[in-house]
This record gives sequence, structure tokens and C-alpha cells, in this order.
Amino acid sequence: MDRNAFFWQIQDGKLPQPRAAETLGMRITRMDPDEGVLEAEFEGKEAFLNPAGKIQGGFLSAMLDDTMGPALAALLNAGEFAPTLNLNVQFLAPAEQGKLEGHGRVVKRGGGICFLSGELTQQGRLVATATATAAIRKL
Amino acid sequence: MDRNAFFWQIQDGKLPQPRAAETLGMRITRMDPDEGVLEAEFEGKEAFLNPAGKIQGGFLSAMLDDTMGPALAALLNAGEFAPTLNLNVQFLAPAEQGKLEGHGRVVKRGGGICFLSGELTQQGRLVATATATAAIRKL
Repeated sequence: MDRNAFFWQIQDGKLPQPRAAETLGMRITRMDPDEGVLEAEFEGKEAFLNPAGKIQGGFLSAMLDDTMGPALAALLNAGEFAPTLNLNVQFLAPAEQGKLEGHGRVVKRGGGICFLSGELTQQGRLVATATATAAIRKL
Repeated sequence: MDRNAFFWQIQDGKLPQPRAAETLGMRITRMDPDEGVLEAEFEGKEAFLNPAGKIQGGFLSAMLDDTMGPALAALLNAGEFAPTLNLNVQFLAPAEQGKLEGHGRVVKRGGGICFLSGELTQQGRLVATATATAAIRKL
């Protein structure tokens, strides 16, 4: 765990919150770097609704990406960044406007390639699951 | 093509633009129901940026979902809706703040299950590709 990595600089208030996280109403509720687990709350806003009045799947994907990405970012060194190469999302149930909880996990932190998984729940109900692949790059 | 389907009601101004589409700065530029093809422009907003100053992959996923979904919605009958079951996105290149172009295609419109594909480009450069599976439901 490198306190100079951008993830921790953000947590320590030395760098601003990323705009994407702000837009999604993200608030990290738990981070365990040893387990490679991150939990966060998101706000399913009216601005994310599809024509059926549910949260559009793409915004659920954005929440999952913003759960898994930071779970990995917390394990990086200063000057490293890990863009997502591939994101695969399964939509199990419709999500309503309101709070959602993300659970992200680093399944394998390789030297160059990392494998991630995540779940999104709403009031205890699983609404979407995801896997992602990310590559570690120098900024 | 059913002019009473919600997609066409929106195009004809009889129903409001979905909030998710508005948030993504979406504007449909071409719709060919015979080919099952939809093209749209999106706005890569500052609000979508990740810590590296690029558009967060989840928001690119939302744009792709909002290209493929409406490509299918244009082929539905009144009272039908087609939630996405699975969305798989590959991120080929970073996307900058600014305009993006989505190209969505209905690969197969089955009776109950539909297969979709999409691409997202920025200034002619392919930044992300996606496939999705959707199920037709009665509202």
C-alpha cells in the first residue's frame, strides 16, 4: 500500500474526488487493501433513468466499474494507473432510483494484468454482477 | 415498425427524452429500422472524467448501452420493452472529454431474445466496442 498512490492521495484529501465518482454519488464505505476489497455506496439518480423508469444499465455498469477500478487502484504504486480493458456486466434485476451498494474485489493482481469482480445490490437484492480485466500502466 | 412503440413516441415528441439519454448528451443522428442500425452522438462531459482525466469506462459503457438499446427499441411493438441482460465492453483506446459517436446494430431480433453490437468512436478513432443480449418483455 503506497500512500502516495493517487487513490490514497484522494482518500487523504490531497487530490480532488474524480468527477465520475461525484456524478455517480459515490462514497467509499470500506477499503481492505489486504483482501483487495472495496465497498461503496452510489446514488441512483433521476438523471440515470431509462424510458421504463429504471436505472439505465450503463449507469449500473459505471457504478460497477467505479467499484472494481478503485479496489485495484488502492493496491497500485505512485505513478501507476490501471485502465479497464474489458468490462462484462450481467443485469439480474431492475434497479430503482435510490441508493445502491457496490462490492468490488481484486481476484488477481498480476504484474501487468489484473482480474476483478464486482456486485451491485439495492436494499439487499443483487441487481448486477460484473467481471473486468485491467492493465497496469505508468502515468 | 410500430409508431406507437415508446421509441417512436419519443422521436415524435409525444413522450419526453429519457433522463439517461439527456445526461449522456445523446442525439440520434440516424435510424434505419430495416437494417436495425442506430447512430447517435454523445457528449463526453467533464462530469464523466476518471482520475487520469479520461472518460471513465463505465460512462462509455452507458453510451454503448444507449446506442444498442434504442437500436432494438425502434423495432419493438407498443407495450414492449427490452431490458439488457448482459453487456460486454472492450476499451480499445482512452476517450477524451468531447463528442463521441455511437453506432449500434441489432445482430438478431429473436422472438424473445435479441443480440446486439455497438461501437463508439471519437474523431474517427475506435475507442470501445460492445456486445449485448436483451430480452423482450411486455410492460
